[in-house]
Amino acid sequence: MIANTPKTPYYAVIFSSIRTEGDNDYLAMADKMIALAKQQPGFLGIESARNEIGITVSYWASLEAIKNWKMHMEHAVVREKGRSTWYETFKVRISKVEHDYGFVR
Amino acid sequence: MIANTPKTPYYAVIFSSIRTEGDNDYLAMADKMIALAKQQPGFLGIESARNEIGITVSYWASLEAIKNWKMHMEHAVVREKGRSTWYETFKVRISKVEHDYGFVR
Repeated sequence: MIANTPKTPYYAVIFSSIRTEGDNDYLAMADKMIALAKQQPGFLGIESARNEIGITVSYWASLEAIKNWKMHMEHAVVREKGRSTWYETFKVRISKVEHDYGFVR
Repeated sequence: MIANTPKTPYYAVIFSSIRTEGDNDYLAMADKMIALAKQQPGFLGIESARNEIGITVSYWASLEAIKNWKMHMEHAVVREKGRSTWYETFKVRISKVEHDYGFVR
């Protein structure tokens, strides 16, 4: 689903990653983290796709909301496991969405 | 591949889409557009993934570079075909990347 975000400006966290081999409980934890993110103040939506690389974009009302989610205890523990086990490499980009437009058939 | 972008700030165009059924020459044209984008001034990199939805993030040095690419004749013709044929729905978000960090195993 394409996220139903509000009027600009808002923030996007672009998370690009390449996985290691094997599941290693990744999919269950990813679903859990998405469910947890959705409960956070300032969460606006999330989009995710993966084939050779994975791209997950989460949308937030403010930089403070992003910072609070980054510091969330359960998320922090899981992020550590990302580095130790799940990801070969990743990049996180924090960006301010200044303009958007869309198309629906 | 994760794009090897320079120091922030730079710009990201987040293109999220849901395709219509069938290829309809989409894949060949998508490859051609990526090759053409890479030749544009201010192009910094591109990342793309698709399963239920597609997410393509292209990175650019400036808003002007993004605007020039949007107005590029060949790209404009192809974008029209996106609306008429390839996409059920899409959203384009133009954002300024203010901060980034990464991890490599």
